[in-house]
Amino acid sequence: MQELTVELGERSYPIYIGEGLLGQPELLLRHITAGQVMVVTNDTIAPLYLDAVLSACEHLQVDQCILPDGESHKNLQTLNRIFDALLARPHSRTTMLIALGGGVVGDMTGFAAACYQRGVDFLQVPTTLLAQVDSSVGGKTGVNHRSGKNMIGAFHQPRCVIADTRTLDTLPDREYAAGLAEVIKYGLIWDAGFFEWIEANIDALMARRQDVLAHAIWRSCSIKARVVGEDERESGLRAILNFGHTFGHAIETHQAYGQWLHGEAVAAGMVVACELSARLGKVDSGLPLRLVTLQRRLGLPVAPPADLGGRRFLDLMAVDKKAVDGRLRLVLLAELGAAVVVTDTSVTEILKAIEASRRFAD
Amino acid sequence: MQELTVELGERSYPIYIGEGLLGQPELLLRHITAGQVMVVTNDTIAPLYLDAVLSACEHLQVDQCILPDGESHKNLQTLNRIFDALLARPHSRTTMLIALGGGVVGDMTGFAAACYQRGVDFLQVPTTLLAQVDSSVGGKTGVNHRSGKNMIGAFHQPRCVIADTRTLDTLPDREYAAGLAEVIKYGLIWDAGFFEWIEANIDALMARRQDVLAHAIWRSCSIKARVVGEDERESGLRAILNFGHTFGHAIETHQAYGQWLHGEAVAAGMVVACELSARLGKVDSGLPLRLVTLQRRLGLPVAPPADLGGRRFLDLMAVDKKAVDGRLRLVLLAELGAAVVVTDTSVTEILKAIEASRRFAD
Repeated sequence: MQELTVELGERSYPIYIGEGLLGQPELLLRHITAGQVMVVTNDTIAPLYLDAVLSACEHLQVDQCILPDGESHKNLQTLNRIFDALLARPHSRTTMLIALGGGVVGDMTGFAAACYQRGVDFLQVPTTLLAQVDSSVGGKTGVNHRSGKNMIGAFHQPRCVIADTRTLDTLPDREYAAGLAEVIKYGLIWDAGFFEWIEANIDALMARRQDVLAHAIWRSCSIKARVVGEDERESGLRAILNFGHTFGHAIETHQAYGQWLHGEAVAAGMVVACELSARLGKVDSGLPLRLVTLQRRLGLPVAPPADLGGRRFLDLMAVDKKAVDGRLRLVLLAELGAAVVVTDTSVTEILKAIEASRRFAD
Repeated sequence: MQELTVELGERSYPIYIGEGLLGQPELLLRHITAGQVMVVTNDTIAPLYLDAVLSACEHLQVDQCILPDGESHKNLQTLNRIFDALLARPHSRTTMLIALGGGVVGDMTGFAAACYQRGVDFLQVPTTLLAQVDSSVGGKTGVNHRSGKNMIGAFHQPRCVIADTRTLDTLPDREYAAGLAEVIKYGLIWDAGFFEWIEANIDALMARRQDVLAHAIWRSCSIKARVVGEDERESGLRAILNFGHTFGHAIETHQAYGQWLHGEAVAAGMVVACELSARLGKVDSGLPLRLVTLQRRLGLPVAPPADLGGRRFLDLMAVDKKAVDGRLRLVLLAELGAAVVVTDTSVTEILKAIEASRRFAD
């Protein structure tokens, strides 16, 4: 088992990464200080892992809330089902929530914990690669609005994150690849050596070799923990974690959340952001193709949807949270392994990069 | 104009109290740092005061969101209308919200500000007495769930509070009296001299004399600011502000929020809490009648609803936020002008106090 800490003063918390951690109830119980817990999961994950969590908590009042699976349910209506479940028992303001599932479950459970009786504690037990390397770490929680992703939410840090790499065995290939898109992101924005390590270990990663996976997750989490530790509420550095996301969110909104997975939209968004970085002379002109080659191996999208025109793309980006007072704030690469936030990119250049990235479309 | 500060470190903010403050746009503008603002109000208040706020902000992008009036609309569905309005323009994460109205508008606007893009700033412009002396100060925001009041919310402090006593001229008598219930509460829990001042000035208060009103609001806010400054997130002292509220919330839930105003339910709840304090020998046995006499002058309820039985009353109290791990936490009076939180009151004693307080029913 590997362990690292997200350093946030009194809100600091550990991340545990390893094979079979769900079979070690003492890990979970170490962080449960309440007499009541509510496990929130979805109908795909419940048959696989819910029993393990319930039996770990059997000496407590343990309740469950099983949500429908999918990003299309990440909204206020579904969130209210968690409140319904909490109040049906009822759970007091000292209860704890356990998020068992992917990013949607984690974001919604964390937001429910942030809001229930104005804030209760929660634990993250991510079961998808995306959640293990990204959404379960850093305290961003929330739901979507029909006008935009994650528009309603809170910063609320978990008490711990338990990432059992064995849970990835049951992950569909597409979701697994979508998670690797975020792993690649960490290499691009922070660590050129890690990017090269991913290129070199792509076969082992695709075979989901436990040791290689554990390293990929550990390195991703350690980069995210470092960034979040320096800028919890995204007033500065943390924005670099959104590399590819401003483009990606526009793609997701265009598709009304559902056709492309988050990681897939981010993958296409990273190609556009990489293309734009290259066109502005910041990175080697060969980097976009190098990224495209890696993403193609994983079956990830490498270009925006053909039916999403450039102007519409820009409109959707303008509503994204990353817009500040009407100026589009973009994360670009300063070089391979280093990101930079820019606010002075011309609309013309952005449009050109969007169009240029279409050449990679299959 | 009177001014005081809620001392919360970097989240400190001023409260301005006085006659005609809505006619002083510079007061509002002093705290608006954004280029966009959204005024949230309701369909009762909008015709009266919305123009004054809009014209103060005319040099900015100023939008409005008019909600239906009433506690029955204080829920996630109505909250979503604020998000709809914010995203329709769209508003960025540097926008500011202005809550213009009573406690429902303030609580919902504050919660929307807490959640919109994971948190934006907001200002409070309370137009009811209840909001001016209580809900606009202290950062408690949220909405109701059908199983309980304020079960979903956040702590989110405003940037300032502007209480124009002139806005109380248009307040219906019943709402005005309900606000005075909270004013009385501050005397009971903190300042016996203030309680006696209220008794002595009851005629001037009922006549809404501006100078007497301003003093009542200033003293109420200064007590609340002191308590909140010591315990922002209600881990200790702040609980005393809930005097009468655990009983009151049960009454409100019983009536499905609507028949009794919040302040009316609190008024009846304070009588029960005072009766219980007297029965436990903490305060003079004459205090309940003294409180009842004062509340009767104001037309406030002085006993629980006849159709709310003692057992049902207790059930509804158990789901209240103030329950900790199944133990009912009550705020009682240690003496006139001093409150104490107790967790060891027997169910039998509580039931006796509920029944005894019914003797005051008209």
